[in-house]
Amino acid sequence: MKQVIASLLFFLAVNAFAQDILPSWNEGPSKQAVLSFIEKTTTPGSADFVPAPERIAVFDNDGTLWSEQPIYVQIAFTFDRVKALAPQRPEWKTKQPFKAVLEDDLKGVLATGQKGLFELIAATHAGVDTDTFRTTVEQWLKTARHPRTGRPYTEMIYQPMLELLAHLEARGYKTYIVSGGGIEFMRPWTEMVYGIPPERVIGSSIKSKFEIVNGIPKIIGLPEVQFIDDGPNKPIGIQERIGRRPVMAFGNSDGDREMLLWTTSGKGPRFGMLIRHTDDIREVAYDRQSHIGRLGKALDMAPETGWVVVDMKKEWKEIFPPKK
Amino acid sequence: MKQVIASLLFFLAVNAFAQDILPSWNEGPSKQAVLSFIEKTTTPGSADFVPAPERIAVFDNDGTLWSEQPIYVQIAFTFDRVKALAPQRPEWKTKQPFKAVLEDDLKGVLATGQKGLFELIAATHAGVDTDTFRTTVEQWLKTARHPRTGRPYTEMIYQPMLELLAHLEARGYKTYIVSGGGIEFMRPWTEMVYGIPPERVIGSSIKSKFEIVNGIPKIIGLPEVQFIDDGPNKPIGIQERIGRRPVMAFGNSDGDREMLLWTTSGKGPRFGMLIRHTDDIREVAYDRQSHIGRLGKALDMAPETGWVVVDMKKEWKEIFPPKK
Repeated sequence: MKQVIASLLFFLAVNAFAQDILPSWNEGPSKQAVLSFIEKTTTPGSADFVPAPERIAVFDNDGTLWSEQPIYVQIAFTFDRVKALAPQRPEWKTKQPFKAVLEDDLKGVLATGQKGLFELIAATHAGVDTDTFRTTVEQWLKTARHPRTGRPYTEMIYQPMLELLAHLEARGYKTYIVSGGGIEFMRPWTEMVYGIPPERVIGSSIKSKFEIVNGIPKIIGLPEVQFIDDGPNKPIGIQERIGRRPVMAFGNSDGDREMLLWTTSGKGPRFGMLIRHTDDIREVAYDRQSHIGRLGKALDMAPETGWVVVDMKKEWKEIFPPKK
Repeated sequence: MKQVIASLLFFLAVNAFAQDILPSWNEGPSKQAVLSFIEKTTTPGSADFVPAPERIAVFDNDGTLWSEQPIYVQIAFTFDRVKALAPQRPEWKTKQPFKAVLEDDLKGVLATGQKGLFELIAATHAGVDTDTFRTTVEQWLKTARHPRTGRPYTEMIYQPMLELLAHLEARGYKTYIVSGGGIEFMRPWTEMVYGIPPERVIGSSIKSKFEIVNGIPKIIGLPEVQFIDDGPNKPIGIQERIGRRPVMAFGNSDGDREMLLWTTSGKGPRFGMLIRHTDDIREVAYDRQSHIGRLGKALDMAPETGWVVVDMKKEWKEIFPPKK
């Protein structure tokens, strides 16, 4: 009898443990593929064992780790900053693209194109030192709310991906963000929200200058692009910052395909995953036609490259973490 | 009697331990300052305790971790590469700055200035993919020898600094290289030689492009400067890559002063150290007049900033590690 109870307890323990690794993923091909890849690359003696220092996993952010619809969170931040700064800039009332932002005219903003967008970024991200900018982002996140759900943006993150990040860390993988988003916009919160420290965040950036202001050294943002971390620049950013080819890469849009290609074309075991936004009830369903997070070319490459495509609707039990 | 023996053993153990931390440093102000700083910032409960994720220590490389005299190692590499590539480039025989390199005419090379130097870098560092360049560096290091000592360059490293790096890692500090040297020139060997992995190497870089060559994705260096990681660019590189202000900074020349200033002007406990090359017997004595690793302005700032100045001759028992 004692033995039976012991066996039963053992069974329950093992089962509970197995269930606990990725509880928000339904049993299915994606869960199985990612778990077995992690298992085989981290088990000593396995033919596909990867030494700990080489265990690098890179993640896109917008649409891969958190929601990017209806607009990128950083764009929402930028619009809010324009509104907050407007009283000091009366000329913005009549000047595009600022006028459109102040009138909540998204079409008008989009009509000003890349140039307009960069003017908005320059006006809201440059001219201040890094410490001040950090505080501005932190303050904004405290009060800003997602337009559809009313939740803080830092809760519009994907629960299944949080579980995956934690499991990777537990198995000795170093997780990195490699995002088209601004590096200084992400760093204030990625450690708290994802457990990814600032030194493992790679993103787009503006130029900056080192200056001593009243005896105090400062690093001040300049209204000039330094690096756009998207498309073919993602592998370049990875090489420049990490200096090793990742073993695993996770993305959700065509802007991630070079990163996945660079990762999965390396020697030895490699893993690529695309998160496909298929759930129009719990989130937003979008792919080939979307202006944000368009997924077409990368999806077409998946069969040949062996990238795993996650069907969010079918494979994710939960999308977002429970409300706090 | 048992107690006496126990006490004696304890005393010996503590003493052996204390002696072992930095055995190549003579007892003196620098050793004491750096050890006590590490102690107070890593002892839980200490008023100056720094949480592990914030323990960042940045090191210049040339002249701080390894020898930079009579010329920067990367320059020696560049000259050797010009010679190795010369048979395929017959026009170099008559074209400066290549002609001067092929004739071992250092003055002639220097006469071509920054422009000439960059032409040499472009001809030897660009046009190949990162994997190929890595192999080239590794191969070169196997046979190249320091002109004065005949030792491999990877043995022209400072034994006292190796001990310091190891001690910092043991106390939870993350050590980074922040060097004016080329990032892809350093990465192939920093992990083996210093224990500093590629993702913790910050340096100068050329631009690169992502390209698919015969179906294989490659990152190929371009003959264009991307970033010169020296002077005021060092804090900028640190912010861009690490995103946290370091707690400790180590340098040896005026090109390191902004990095030290940025580090030591942060809130809370901070530490700056300058390695001063004072030993003309065991190494080379140089400071204000040197073309390589000039140290004048930073030295003048030391009293006011509290930076610790190491007198290599007096304070280092050994300069280089024993021959292998």
